Amino acid sequence: MSPAIFIDALQNELQRTPYGQYPPELYDPIRYIMSLGGKRMRPLLTLMAAYLFTDDWKKAIRPALAVEVFHNFTLMHDDIMDQAPLRRGQPTVHKKWNYNIAILSGDVMLVKAHELLLDVDADKLKPAMTRFTRTAAEVCEGQQMDMNFEKRWDVTEAEYIDMIRLKTSVLLGYALELGGLIGGADDETNAHLYAGGVNIGIGFQLKDDLLDVYGDPAKFGKQVGGDIIANKKTFLLIEALEQATGSVKDELIGWLTRPDFDKAEKVRAITTIYDQLGIRQITEARINDYFAQGFANFEQINADSARKAFLLQFTRQLVERES
Amino acid sequence: MSPAIFIDALQNELQRTPYGQYPPELYDPIRYIMSLGGKRMRPLLTLMAAYLFTDDWKKAIRPALAVEVFHNFTLMHDDIMDQAPLRRGQPTVHKKWNYNIAILSGDVMLVKAHELLLDVDADKLKPAMTRFTRTAAEVCEGQQMDMNFEKRWDVTEAEYIDMIRLKTSVLLGYALELGGLIGGADDETNAHLYAGGVNIGIGFQLKDDLLDVYGDPAKFGKQVGGDIIANKKTFLLIEALEQATGSVKDELIGWLTRPDFDKAEKVRAITTIYDQLGIRQITEARINDYFAQGFANFEQINADSARKAFLLQFTRQLVERES
Repeated sequence: MSPAIFIDALQNELQRTPYGQYPPELYDPIRYIMSLGGKRMRPLLTLMAAYLFTDDWKKAIRPALAVEVFHNFTLMHDDIMDQAPLRRGQPTVHKKWNYNIAILSGDVMLVKAHELLLDVDADKLKPAMTRFTRTAAEVCEGQQMDMNFEKRWDVTEAEYIDMIRLKTSVLLGYALELGGLIGGADDETNAHLYAGGVNIGIGFQLKDDLLDVYGDPAKFGKQVGGDIIANKKTFLLIEALEQATGSVKDELIGWLTRPDFDKAEKVRAITTIYDQLGIRQITEARINDYFAQGFANFEQINADSARKAFLLQFTRQLVERES
Repeated sequence: MSPAIFIDALQNELQRTPYGQYPPELYDPIRYIMSLGGKRMRPLLTLMAAYLFTDDWKKAIRPALAVEVFHNFTLMHDDIMDQAPLRRGQPTVHKKWNYNIAILSGDVMLVKAHELLLDVDADKLKPAMTRFTRTAAEVCEGQQMDMNFEKRWDVTEAEYIDMIRLKTSVLLGYALELGGLIGGADDETNAHLYAGGVNIGIGFQLKDDLLDVYGDPAKFGKQVGGDIIANKKTFLLIEALEQATGSVKDELIGWLTRPDFDKAEKVRAITTIYDQLGIRQITEARINDYFAQGFANFEQINADSARKAFLLQFTRQLVERES
């Protein structure tokens, strides 16, 4: 078994899913954003989790796609709210078409995500859908918290972790749990899959924050220091604001409140403050904690060891990424 | 049995449905728009349709609320797209809060609508949800068609009817069909309920167009002629553009393209053109056709005659409204 088999099956389903035809302004943006790629991490996790418990993992393909369509719906609407011009190097839907089309196409994507999920076996439909609607609402809650945090300077570490848990991690947890449910695993196992996904997801997001500052520019896809330039409230900044005192705190706040600055100088200065406060080590320790907790959750799962090794290897690749 | 029993049961459920708490920016707008009132026509139809076939109509309350929450979600997002300042005389959500909150609150409402529908009996879940997602996508299609029509002068009557069928009527059809499904009616009966709802819905929307021009100002809630002033592409205008020739057509197009005009004069002039072309009679005939077809659909339904009389009476009140 190789991940290529799952990737191919998914890609095949992506190509033949029509979404809808008329009016084209409503459905073309769905095909567009779905074609921009991405790692397809969530649906692959669903397929691999199903494969832990059944040879008939292909029945998880359309439900896995539901998770991916939902994820891309959040990207389409988040891009409107962030007024982002680009997504994966291409114009965002509201730039390529317009705001109203991005709102309405996103709405119909959210409906289509629910529709794709209807493909689970009848006896699994209620739990699959109940957990999905709960997760989807939580993702919206996380997005609203993220927007609220932009206007605050007193966000605590606990609040930040809760926000990223909701905005990004619960969907990873759900992707795995859904696979377990479709594969026929029991509730306890599905809870371990979910918890593992959430913990890996939090570690994953913290690593994203870390790589922005300490990533290898040769490997990191984005501009190193982009979050620093934008005053983005990352785990590192929140931790630094909590830890800094005296003149270090004054200097940090000085950089955050200065309207005009040299970008490279700001990145250097704030990185130096992070270094002084040991933020890198604090962040790395937290990332390792969450990853370790996630793998400990997976340890609890009773499944064929070769199939489990396969999921663990895929997850390990995800957590070891440098970009 | 009196409609008050259904209205009270619904009102009670509306009051005790929490939607969610945190963050408040996400959930307060849902409670706000749901509190603005409205006729609650759709959920009442669901309850009355369920009551046709079961004494246990109360199990339809939460699913009925799903339809009402979905309807209000469409209002919240349509108001953004139309940049409407007011909804039922109160500030719209994007005015009272902001655009991002209106987008995200609407998104979570759409999720909550699906969640409320999960309350149907397990053996009805798949058909209820399948038909709901289909209907929800169609409502989005209708809204996109409506936006497209704003930029066109060659919209045909058939296109217009198809647009209002999707944008407003299929949800009335679904509301009735859902009640039948929950009540235990067979597929054929549910198809009659659906068709009846769609036909009544189209007639209802055409009557809305008619009342804007020919409504009694003392009874009609809105400004008479509002659609004419705004060049809104109603059934009457589309019909007039199709029927008019020669100097009448030139005069009509003159009024539609004039940037500055006296509002009352424009309303008078276009109404006169409508009168000359017999648009009122054409529209009334079409309304009556759709209403008659809707009641003919209801005729096909085999149910207790007292209970059926109750639904028919309620529907008759809806179609005979003057505002």
